[in-house]
Amino acid sequence: METLKIVGICGSLRKNSTNLGLLRYAQEHAPEGMEIRIAELKEVPFFNADLELEDRPSAVQTLLRDIEAADALLLACPEYNYSLAPALKNALDWASREKDNRLLAGKPAAILGSGGGLGSARAQYHLRQVCVYLDLRVLNKPEIFCNAFAGGFDPSGNLIDVELQKLVDSQLEELQSWAHKIRT
Amino acid sequence: METLKIVGICGSLRKNSTNLGLLRYAQEHAPEGMEIRIAELKEVPFFNADLELEDRPSAVQTLLRDIEAADALLLACPEYNYSLAPALKNALDWASREKDNRLLAGKPAAILGSGGGLGSARAQYHLRQVCVYLDLRVLNKPEIFCNAFAGGFDPSGNLIDVELQKLVDSQLEELQSWAHKIRT
Amino acid sequence: METLKIVGICGSLRKNSTNLGLLRYAQEHAPEGMEIRIAELKEVPFFNADLELEDRPSAVQTLLRDIEAADALLLACPEYNYSLAPALKNALDWASREKDNRLLAGKPAAILGSGGGLGSARAQYHLRQVCVYLDLRVLNKPEIFCNAFAGGFDPSGNLIDVELQKLVDSQLEELQSWAHKIRT
Amino acid sequence: METLKIVGICGSLRKNSTNLGLLRYAQEHAPEGMEIRIAELKEVPFFNADLELEDRPSAVQTLLRDIEAADALLLACPEYNYSLAPALKNALDWASREKDNRLLAGKPAAILGSGGGLGSARAQYHLRQVCVYLDLRVLNKPEIFCNAFAGGFDPSGNLIDVELQKLVDSQLEELQSWAHKIRT
Repeated sequence: METLKIVGICGSLRKNSTNLGLLRYAQEHAPEGMEIRIAELKEVPFFNADLELEDRPSAVQTLLRDIEAADALLLACPEYNYSLAPALKNALDWASREKDNRLLAGKPAAILGSGGGLGSARAQYHLRQVCVYLDLRVLNKPEIFCNAFAGGFDPSGNLIDVELQKLVDSQLEELQSWAHKIRT
Repeated sequence: METLKIVGICGSLRKNSTNLGLLRYAQEHAPEGMEIRIAELKEVPFFNADLELEDRPSAVQTLLRDIEAADALLLACPEYNYSLAPALKNALDWASREKDNRLLAGKPAAILGSGGGLGSARAQYHLRQVCVYLDLRVLNKPEIFCNAFAGGFDPSGNLIDVELQKLVDSQLEELQSWAHKIRT
Repeated sequence: METLKIVGICGSLRKNSTNLGLLRYAQEHAPEGMEIRIAELKEVPFFNADLELEDRPSAVQTLLRDIEAADALLLACPEYNYSLAPALKNALDWASREKDNRLLAGKPAAILGSGGGLGSARAQYHLRQVCVYLDLRVLNKPEIFCNAFAGGFDPSGNLIDVELQKLVDSQLEELQSWAHKIRT
Repeated sequence: METLKIVGICGSLRKNSTNLGLLRYAQEHAPEGMEIRIAELKEVPFFNADLELEDRPSAVQTLLRDIEAADALLLACPEYNYSLAPALKNALDWASREKDNRLLAGKPAAILGSGGGLGSARAQYHLRQVCVYLDLRVLNKPEIFCNAFAGGFDPSGNLIDVELQKLVDSQLEELQSWAHKIRT
């Protein structure tokens, strides 16, 4: 069976982001047959339809190439003010405009996130609505809501809580079997 | 009675944005006793908590000053992929981090928007959830959902539909009386 | 200053409901100048536009009278399967159809709730969207999300956690001052 | 290939409901290899955990049997006051409590609906959030938002608009191929 290529996209641009830490953990502990590449959003500008008439900035080109090459998406979703982090939404907005959304349509996806008291849940439900339009096929379960302030992460944002690690492990396995099931 | 100062914030960065057109119409037809200033988002970078340790870029400083000076907000809300335009969300995220959210807390607000078939409705409900956290006191009615493709705007994004113009007029009047009622 | 009359509506029909317990606590500890009456939903049938042509069942009449007499609403919102409890939604649906929604339009409201891990938060945001249409003016803060399984309630559903009690106290005070502010 | 059994559930209890009309159309025009049975909700009482200790009322038993026998769900979703019709939500709440949600978990589903200006879109997004918990695997597209007041239905609620009929046809085909794909 071919290796499943995943692109991880993190909505937080902070160096020590716990959401980035979730993706790093996933990358280092991906099950056999899965490879995770983490997209780089720092230089991706705000989408603006006027820019579509020009050449894509190179950071956008790299992002789009990473998404196109992926079989599935792993979305690390912070919560800012009860909704999505603009950088994550913006990455998906750029991708949706390429080739009539064919970079995304029909691909499997999983969502996980870290935030305040509700662990980014509010943002994750907004993200799920976005995925309806993008035609991403998002795993229902397990949902992963990490409280960033409850000791599950070290100061560099690394995931150190064993129960949460197991939850991420199980989400990756579910994503893998979901991806194999729905591949056309 | 003092003049009510409104800051208009538009989620689209396009030159000919219909959402910007809504704000321009509002600005030019504000009722007596109301002044609308339209914020400039083009140079505002993505919020990132690491940046908080540094001096605010000058575009952010100007934005924050405009919001702080305002008695109320008028939010022009496009819909990208069934949710918020990142530039609008990002402007609010920056504002929320200043002075413990005192730039926003308790202020009256109104939302209007232009988009595809549902006129940006899906994005507007996400924005309303954001406003709960920001403690903005959003008008319930009238809601304004403009179909950007149904002929209500000219090619430069100016609002030319008379019924929609009246709706914006009535929203501004409601915002004015709401603002006077809830001012502490 | 006149007494502020509140109608409390609870989405759970269980005898030992923790959501009902929240309303009972509120009723017994309402601040001076506030009176809370708890609506009875057990015999209220599902709304159905065909029934509008007939006389309202007496349980519906009583509910509508209680809502009409109230200056403000206190909504106890359980979460069933990530959204609203049908009995609460149904009570509001009935009320919305009377006299062109004049039983509800413009009235202040507060939401609190008890549920699983997120304390009914998901349902509360759906309820807030409902309140936009109903033109209820819902308090932004404090939000009250009680975890029903974390020991805050006794087996009869009575609220016994002191911190949560204080939170309900503060919500009632906010509702009182909000109601006095926005009364026309 | 075995016949795919669908249970259709309609949130409106009105005799001439346009949402029921959508299900009737689907039933009469199901593609070869699909059979649709429409559930009867009129006598299903509000779910209440106290009732779980007793025998299920017979209307509930029939509903649960219909859902258990189905390979997939077709949910006709009206919009009442910007959210779900209580009767539809209540049917799903009952089903979720049986056998640890095994009547629903993992089943494919499609949503369609008829309503006011936005065609029940607001309610449908709430329903999609419910389906995350229920672990229903909902089709992303096509979404079906019918304006009940724009002439697409006759006075008995029958779907007569040819474009909408084609949309329902295509949704049923998508549901069929989705169901065959994800069946374990």
